[in-house]
Amino acid sequence: MTTAVLLLSCPDRPGIVAAVADFVFRHGGNIVDAQQHTDRTEGVFFQRIEFELEDADLDRDRIQPAMHELVDRFDMQCAVRFSDEVPRVGVLVSREGHCLVDLLARSRSGELAVEIPVVISNHEHEAEVASWFGVDYRYLPVTADTKPEQEAAMQRALDEHGVTLVVLARYMQILSPEFCDRWQERIINIHHSFLPAFSGGRPYHQAHERGVKLVGVTAHYATAALDDGPIIDQDVVRVSHRDSIEDLRRRGRDLEVVVLARAVRAHVEHRVLVHGRRTVVFD
Amino acid sequence: MTTAVLLLSCPDRPGIVAAVADFVFRHGGNIVDAQQHTDRTEGVFFQRIEFELEDADLDRDRIQPAMHELVDRFDMQCAVRFSDEVPRVGVLVSREGHCLVDLLARSRSGELAVEIPVVISNHEHEAEVASWFGVDYRYLPVTADTKPEQEAAMQRALDEHGVTLVVLARYMQILSPEFCDRWQERIINIHHSFLPAFSGGRPYHQAHERGVKLVGVTAHYATAALDDGPIIDQDVVRVSHRDSIEDLRRRGRDLEVVVLARAVRAHVEHRVLVHGRRTVVFD
Amino acid sequence: MTTAVLLLSCPDRPGIVAAVADFVFRHGGNIVDAQQHTDRTEGVFFQRIEFELEDADLDRDRIQPAMHELVDRFDMQCAVRFSDEVPRVGVLVSREGHCLVDLLARSRSGELAVEIPVVISNHEHEAEVASWFGVDYRYLPVTADTKPEQEAAMQRALDEHGVTLVVLARYMQILSPEFCDRWQERIINIHHSFLPAFSGGRPYHQAHERGVKLVGVTAHYATAALDDGPIIDQDVVRVSHRDSIEDLRRRGRDLEVVVLARAVRAHVEHRVLVHGRRTVVFD
Amino acid sequence: MTTAVLLLSCPDRPGIVAAVADFVFRHGGNIVDAQQHTDRTEGVFFQRIEFELEDADLDRDRIQPAMHELVDRFDMQCAVRFSDEVPRVGVLVSREGHCLVDLLARSRSGELAVEIPVVISNHEHEAEVASWFGVDYRYLPVTADTKPEQEAAMQRALDEHGVTLVVLARYMQILSPEFCDRWQERIINIHHSFLPAFSGGRPYHQAHERGVKLVGVTAHYATAALDDGPIIDQDVVRVSHRDSIEDLRRRGRDLEVVVLARAVRAHVEHRVLVHGRRTVVFD
Repeated sequence: MTTAVLLLSCPDRPGIVAAVADFVFRHGGNIVDAQQHTDRTEGVFFQRIEFELEDADLDRDRIQPAMHELVDRFDMQCAVRFSDEVPRVGVLVSREGHCLVDLLARSRSGELAVEIPVVISNHEHEAEVASWFGVDYRYLPVTADTKPEQEAAMQRALDEHGVTLVVLARYMQILSPEFCDRWQERIINIHHSFLPAFSGGRPYHQAHERGVKLVGVTAHYATAALDDGPIIDQDVVRVSHRDSIEDLRRRGRDLEVVVLARAVRAHVEHRVLVHGRRTVVFD
Repeated sequence: MTTAVLLLSCPDRPGIVAAVADFVFRHGGNIVDAQQHTDRTEGVFFQRIEFELEDADLDRDRIQPAMHELVDRFDMQCAVRFSDEVPRVGVLVSREGHCLVDLLARSRSGELAVEIPVVISNHEHEAEVASWFGVDYRYLPVTADTKPEQEAAMQRALDEHGVTLVVLARYMQILSPEFCDRWQERIINIHHSFLPAFSGGRPYHQAHERGVKLVGVTAHYATAALDDGPIIDQDVVRVSHRDSIEDLRRRGRDLEVVVLARAVRAHVEHRVLVHGRRTVVFD
Repeated sequence: MTTAVLLLSCPDRPGIVAAVADFVFRHGGNIVDAQQHTDRTEGVFFQRIEFELEDADLDRDRIQPAMHELVDRFDMQCAVRFSDEVPRVGVLVSREGHCLVDLLARSRSGELAVEIPVVISNHEHEAEVASWFGVDYRYLPVTADTKPEQEAAMQRALDEHGVTLVVLARYMQILSPEFCDRWQERIINIHHSFLPAFSGGRPYHQAHERGVKLVGVTAHYATAALDDGPIIDQDVVRVSHRDSIEDLRRRGRDLEVVVLARAVRAHVEHRVLVHGRRTVVFD
Repeated sequence: MTTAVLLLSCPDRPGIVAAVADFVFRHGGNIVDAQQHTDRTEGVFFQRIEFELEDADLDRDRIQPAMHELVDRFDMQCAVRFSDEVPRVGVLVSREGHCLVDLLARSRSGELAVEIPVVISNHEHEAEVASWFGVDYRYLPVTADTKPEQEAAMQRALDEHGVTLVVLARYMQILSPEFCDRWQERIINIHHSFLPAFSGGRPYHQAHERGVKLVGVTAHYATAALDDGPIIDQDVVRVSHRDSIEDLRRRGRDLEVVVLARAVRAHVEHRVLVHGRRTVVFD
């Protein structure tokens, strides 16, 4: 059953919940999920409301216009999504393919509702994997000097495949601010530390040197500020003095796979709202 | 700011969310939180809706009657609670006082919004603790023969203190079906296993013998069926072959304290709805 | 650097640690890891001692005979393993391939030091995956009537490939007691519940019906008693009333993959000692 | 049964394990636990070896001298501890008493083998709690100007009570480098973040602002470098956008209590070896 999802945010004030519920009801939509959150510090209201389209009297491209009056009245940000829109994901990867394989396998099994038409890498390692899954693999090596050209080539490949979401599945290059801005809130990165600890390079080395007792991973939207974008999900695993850097890497890999998949799922199910450096992630 | 909480459940059908939101809005209530859940297997809709009373045009004892029309229309169960109602908790305990001390300390610090006027025990151990906190301590020993009398004495003590919630903080006696029924959904028990594993007596012994790698605890509403009531919260902690039964007990204790406190908090914040053997626990 | 591992168990008494350490030292072995455990309830001593062979004066096939005197003196069980022995794993799978893919990928990347020459299934689903990885796939369908023949065919396939460890990667058939006995302590199963809760079929259905707040998985050695073999590893993930049975399955899958891989790793690194229904798993 | 514990570290080379085991055995000690670790990056060997004194031919004050030859041969650091030495703990606390109450309760119940003769605070809040437990409470207020005098008074109070371990149970003052040095590896602090993230003041505010999805706590030895001492234990708890700063504080408190108690336990059971900025914590 196809559903529409409204993702709303606006200054908090009385009457929003009732007005939105009434809007949906008047148009014949059956609400199947509604979640809200009020950030009391900043006085901002967030809502995700999902309703069945079947008996609704609005075509999908009429929903946003019909929301006009509410958007004006409450000074709202309003995005409209549909459950049958399948995001087209471009995966960027460097040398380590575990997250890539996992995303491809989840997409293939239908567990994750995404299509992955293209994999881009600055290495040739994972070409075979892409070929197994019948996915276009673009090998785009990069040096400090060729970065602008390489990013332009990436952009062309993403455009060509109609990509709507970029996933950095252990892509070890820093993207330019321009690239990040163009794909704002549409690039998900997995960083192999519990941010903000150990941002930047070689986080497992840093963790080992500091002697922490847990290592973590962080999935976040990439922004121009390195490792500082809004966090979508995080998790940790217990380690001990027995664990070498290689052991941390191995334990971390299992976590990277799961946390990245959870973050991508939250995004494609339209459950994430970004607010400054933070996110609201509905269940 | 005082709020009212509506806890609703009814057969699922279109229009409930809008109707309830509209009800609150028409009466001038500002909705500060609304959570819902639809059990698709059984077609049941659950909602918790919390609104500020300040500008509402209904006195608190008029809310339930005013809901009458909605209750009828949707065949609803509807409970009305208020954020400033402080439950009066009677704690039952046997020999191990860790959960009792924790609840008393949380109540005293204001972290947990409950009053604890009375502690009842079949042992004398924890009298000193109760006296520190200035709480009435009723020592009511029990044998197989005296159970009915002892339960009657417990009931009198609870009545005398106007108790509205009973917490079994490691109370090692089985309560009669009559007692459980009288306090339906108002007795919270902490069982020291990950139910349904290791129900009944000596769960840490059972866990040790089976060689499990995690031990757990379960907070649930007590029902006439032993260790089978609706589960409110559970958690586990990792153990290993190195852990003796005494070690399991020690690790478990830390968990019992936290999980029981979380469950009591969920209950007193009116976030728990019972549905058969299961619960809906809103965040 | 190749190492030898001694896995020892015997009745506890003074002098064992010193005698074993002295044995290794006298023969020129450099101890790189030694872990021990004493089960005080039953008075049994367990040890894993790993040493470098490089400067040792014993050929590998002379170690067991040379231990003879110690084995006699302390009434010891003694197994000798070597770090460069790579187990040959036969994976049995039914319809769900996530654990299979994971094991094949870990083997291929070298993360898990096993060879997987053969995959056996009562379904045809995963033939393509096996073919990607260049692994022999034996489709051996089974009915109640053909079970003995099917198990005999499985045994032949395992023999043919020189298999030394069988992994049940979501194999949904019950193995005969004879098969389990023949492969004693060499069959690792992943069960999709936190045993002993929800043994038998459809554990996620059982978990959903009971309304638990965590679902778990258990890796254990398979024995003739269903779901009752010695537990190697377990883990859980938090769920809520929002999770349908399909959601439990999905969350569980991620856990099954990781816990099974951890258990296989522990086994192939010779870190597991079985003692009755329990295991000692050294770090 | 009284046991002795040897805590050893030295440059790694063959023969250490055998030599130490032989030493204990020759002197009639029965080894009940032996754990070792080799830091391969730095080539350092660590060992904890625990043995029963009953049949040993050495008085306790003769063990260290008798180790002389081994210490010389292997260039060893060697500490000798005894299971019946009960540390005398001085607890420093500021305004929040949850860790203090917990430590006092664990000491009183015998779960934690420490005596707590004195509590020192720069506030008067927790005097009543100390009095319940019959513990001397020293109220020593401090300002920037009076810090040296206050620390001198603390030192006198600790000396007076024969304190051998200082626990900072949410003590919100920075100790001078001199004080930290005098109590090197004998001050355990609980910091309410997952270090190295959010060191310094108001970590829950920092965590809230950054929008992390887990908050953590860290127990570590205090050193002159703020929040940078060797980490003994850490843990985290999941949070969400729903959690206010006050919610983070509440969730954190439960974790602070447990992690601090685990760290103190590891220390008093002589299971911690410090190596530069890191620790080896045996199970």
